[in-house]
Amino acid sequence: MDVKPKVNGDVNYEERNHRPATIAGPTNPMVTPLLTDLYQFTMAYAYWKAGKHNERAVFDLYFRKNPFGGEYTVFAGLEECIRFIANFNISKDEITFLQETLPPTCEDGFFDYLQGVDCSDVEVYAIPEGSVVFPKVPLMRIEGPVAVVQLLETPFVNLINYASLVTTNAARHRFVAGKSKLLLEFGLRRAQGPDGGIGASRYCYMGGFDATSNCAAGKIFGIPLRGTHSHAFVSSFMGPDEIIEKSLKSYDGSRICEDFVSVVQTWLSKLKRLSILRGVFGETNQSELAAFVSYALAFPDNFLALVDTYDVMKSGVPNFCAVALALNDLGYKARGIRLDSGDLAYLSCETRKFFQTIENEFGVPGFGKTGITASNDLNEETLDALNKQGHEVDAFGIGTYLVTCYAQAALGCVFKLVEINNQPRIKLSEDVSKVSIPCKKRSFRLYGKEGYPLLDIMSGENEPPPMVGERILCRHPFNESKRAFVVPQRVEELMKCYWTGNTDKEREELPTLKENRERCAQQLDQMRPDHMRKVNPTPYKVSVTAKLYDFIHFLWLNEAPVGELQ
Amino acid sequence: MDVKPKVNGDVNYEERNHRPATIAGPTNPMVTPLLTDLYQFTMAYAYWKAGKHNERAVFDLYFRKNPFGGEYTVFAGLEECIRFIANFNISKDEITFLQETLPPTCEDGFFDYLQGVDCSDVEVYAIPEGSVVFPKVPLMRIEGPVAVVQLLETPFVNLINYASLVTTNAARHRFVAGKSKLLLEFGLRRAQGPDGGIGASRYCYMGGFDATSNCAAGKIFGIPLRGTHSHAFVSSFMGPDEIIEKSLKSYDGSRICEDFVSVVQTWLSKLKRLSILRGVFGETNQSELAAFVSYALAFPDNFLALVDTYDVMKSGVPNFCAVALALNDLGYKARGIRLDSGDLAYLSCETRKFFQTIENEFGVPGFGKTGITASNDLNEETLDALNKQGHEVDAFGIGTYLVTCYAQAALGCVFKLVEINNQPRIKLSEDVSKVSIPCKKRSFRLYGKEGYPLLDIMSGENEPPPMVGERILCRHPFNESKRAFVVPQRVEELMKCYWTGNTDKEREELPTLKENRERCAQQLDQMRPDHMRKVNPTPYKVSVTAKLYDFIHFLWLNEAPVGELQ
Repeated sequence: MDVKPKVNGDVNYEERNHRPATIAGPTNPMVTPLLTDLYQFTMAYAYWKAGKHNERAVFDLYFRKNPFGGEYTVFAGLEECIRFIANFNISKDEITFLQETLPPTCEDGFFDYLQGVDCSDVEVYAIPEGSVVFPKVPLMRIEGPVAVVQLLETPFVNLINYASLVTTNAARHRFVAGKSKLLLEFGLRRAQGPDGGIGASRYCYMGGFDATSNCAAGKIFGIPLRGTHSHAFVSSFMGPDEIIEKSLKSYDGSRICEDFVSVVQTWLSKLKRLSILRGVFGETNQSELAAFVSYALAFPDNFLALVDTYDVMKSGVPNFCAVALALNDLGYKARGIRLDSGDLAYLSCETRKFFQTIENEFGVPGFGKTGITASNDLNEETLDALNKQGHEVDAFGIGTYLVTCYAQAALGCVFKLVEINNQPRIKLSEDVSKVSIPCKKRSFRLYGKEGYPLLDIMSGENEPPPMVGERILCRHPFNESKRAFVVPQRVEELMKCYWTGNTDKEREELPTLKENRERCAQQLDQMRPDHMRKVNPTPYKVSVTAKLYDFIHFLWLNEAPVGELQ
Repeated sequence: MDVKPKVNGDVNYEERNHRPATIAGPTNPMVTPLLTDLYQFTMAYAYWKAGKHNERAVFDLYFRKNPFGGEYTVFAGLEECIRFIANFNISKDEITFLQETLPPTCEDGFFDYLQGVDCSDVEVYAIPEGSVVFPKVPLMRIEGPVAVVQLLETPFVNLINYASLVTTNAARHRFVAGKSKLLLEFGLRRAQGPDGGIGASRYCYMGGFDATSNCAAGKIFGIPLRGTHSHAFVSSFMGPDEIIEKSLKSYDGSRICEDFVSVVQTWLSKLKRLSILRGVFGETNQSELAAFVSYALAFPDNFLALVDTYDVMKSGVPNFCAVALALNDLGYKARGIRLDSGDLAYLSCETRKFFQTIENEFGVPGFGKTGITASNDLNEETLDALNKQGHEVDAFGIGTYLVTCYAQAALGCVFKLVEINNQPRIKLSEDVSKVSIPCKKRSFRLYGKEGYPLLDIMSGENEPPPMVGERILCRHPFNESKRAFVVPQRVEELMKCYWTGNTDKEREELPTLKENRERCAQQLDQMRPDHMRKVNPTPYKVSVTAKLYDFIHFLWLNEAPVGELQ
């Protein structure tokens, strides 16, 4: 028990089990054993009543279909699952609530049993967080007493589903935006509740974003923070007359400009007189000018202005440039502008031209490269459209569509029993895609000559693992005719042990968020590009060994009822 | 300060301000003053630096478009906002984090100021939670020192957006399902994070659902809980041989059946021999039969079985009926079945026929009415389709599409400055729908002769309110040609004071969740049906007084920059 998640910050969590916990509790203290479906407790009672509650069960957690019309998913949420089970304990108060909730016929012995339940007899195997993963292949394998593992189903699926979905969404946004752009997550206000927001910030960072606007997430997870001002700040000012303290010290501290406002106004007049800008703008909005000046006086070294409160090209950009040039006189370099409405491709190009004109006309080196951030209802599609049109945006602030996963708001992770008492179990369905793959399994990623992963293969736990250079028959789990021989150049076992219970097995350390972020980037990079592209991506193959294939179909026939047609 | 939210339960929250709080803190303890965008703090610093931080500002919180292609929205999330501001206090630890985060040039005085910030000088007016609301009309009006109110923007919008969206989604599902059906929220596992799940359960109940599967939400909010068993429970059994304790006491306690398993098997044989059922089923699945028997032995008075693990009509329903008939022998009435896959309309009708056959053939009164619950990826569309096809479902368990608001995963609530220092402010945009309505306003709902609301009207704060029987000119806020005279039969002022700060104004009590749920049902009921229908609903009119209209357009012209074309 020597794993300490290296999160930055100190969010309090309830030390539920009153033992010194070496793994912190869930980030959200509302994640308790009661954060589960009632049927997990009714089933626990029925198992207990039948004397079956301690039967050793194996469950797989997996999903059936990649989200967003893509052919890959990024796995996230594992750390929270481990934090949850490391501190799993049903409090007296929770037991009392369950006693009041379940039918009065339920026997007291069950509640005594529940009070002693923890995860010391549970083992959790999982693919490392931040990995690229595929449908049907278990993300996690959870083994333990059937009644206990069932109680974990709902919280585990809850903790994995959204985490993996939004990490994948972030990775997809990064893919479209390209590696050179700065991606900022601005979604807190539109997220599905407070920790929808906090989770989004954390997992978007994992998926490849550079920073968030969410201070709580910055504090808890150590994610870089970004933010400047809103429209309200701009419209809260009436005009430059209300600025009382007008002095500003130069960047190097050598001199003080006593009236920064008038320097700005002088620059604005110079801009207006430039023949090359004639007709571009006339009188700019004075509330806006006052707001920009005030913001610059507060943050002379971090001046970034939102320029679309009144009119981007007629007011916002000229006002920004006047302030930026005044700052430049004092040795400060303005950060740039933010566009939050209108035609972002057009406006960013026009703004860039304006900046370049200033660089040329006034000889301010680098002014043409002043930053342009864009942030109006962006998503994969608008990023793609901007790329096609051509734009001059350096940084994108993305909110609603990113954090709510608007294009597909849910990932369908499931948690299926695959073995109990060493007996493999299958869940049938008229929909073949919903039939579960039975048995306690191992899974492997096989790599080809070019270093790309070729396919994932699942085998029964006791089969010999696939070997490098060996010819392996890989079968589609349900489609008889789909099979391929593969000779792997590298074989990677996918699942590692993250929770050993009381066994003396080796346990993986929980990586930091930053390590998971790096893993995610590296995993995405190593995929063959045709699996990753936005339009018509090639499906990545997921297979089973010949032996497992035969066993699945034997079990299937065995379990399916035979009708008696007459 | 005598408002105590009457929530059931005892979720711990940090008493952040170390004063005895009479309003509990936010349900989710992660809702702290840092749960906001960084720019709220950078703006606060800029306001403070400019000496503007205490200027009295008025912000409106509103949305621009009804969700889900509908013409109404239900307002929710108010209680959490009030809990948040009632306990608003930035801790030392948070101040330290902010100090490390903001540029080192920020002056210490600002952080001293932040440490003393609370909401004692803030007033909050709002439409009651659970009300039917419309675009552009303020849901909340927040007044106070500009720097403080800005800090509230992000958490307020976060707390209102998803709450209102999911409450509206629940109300829409209730509308399609009809009042006679039982609606169960089963979404926890697919929700966007832990409190996405807890919030969904709370607000779906407010919007008209009857129960949830989420134990935590049941405990915190007193929502009725529902749940029985999953597929895993069924497949965890091998066959009836493994059932050791087979006895069951009769409902009235008068006798004990020593071998319930064999009574069930006898009933199964009787069912098989019924000529009317010949060809419907043959050998049923014995794992399933064992699971049903075990569940019945654990919950003889609450027997509800999931019947689609192997095959609904060939195995699940006959197995269920055998157990239900054996229970009936002992005086118990089975609750019913749950269908979780396949053609729910067809299967529910076939099951109903099966039940009725049993009622007729074996003379079991009421057996034909045994409950049928359906729960496979349901949403408004599938409910509507089921209604059109005809079905026999009594209760719907709805998850993914409901709680993630899959059809539209975000509501776009905004928070706009409308007045500062008694000066009205407007936010312009090239997109007219994004122009804000300036001024500190009041709003009224005007009712017609038939008792239906006719329209909502906003006025400047100091205008005389609309009077019953008086002819009022109601104008579209932005479209000159859209106006109507209205003679209201009833006038309802929409916003009430929910937070008075330190003033001695009267404050509204926060209603209980149940009261909000009742308000919601009553508000939905009183709407004219054509606003509520699913297909082509009539937009509800939102208007401004003639005086406010003129003022908006005066301000607009005043603020918009005039270009200089040549």
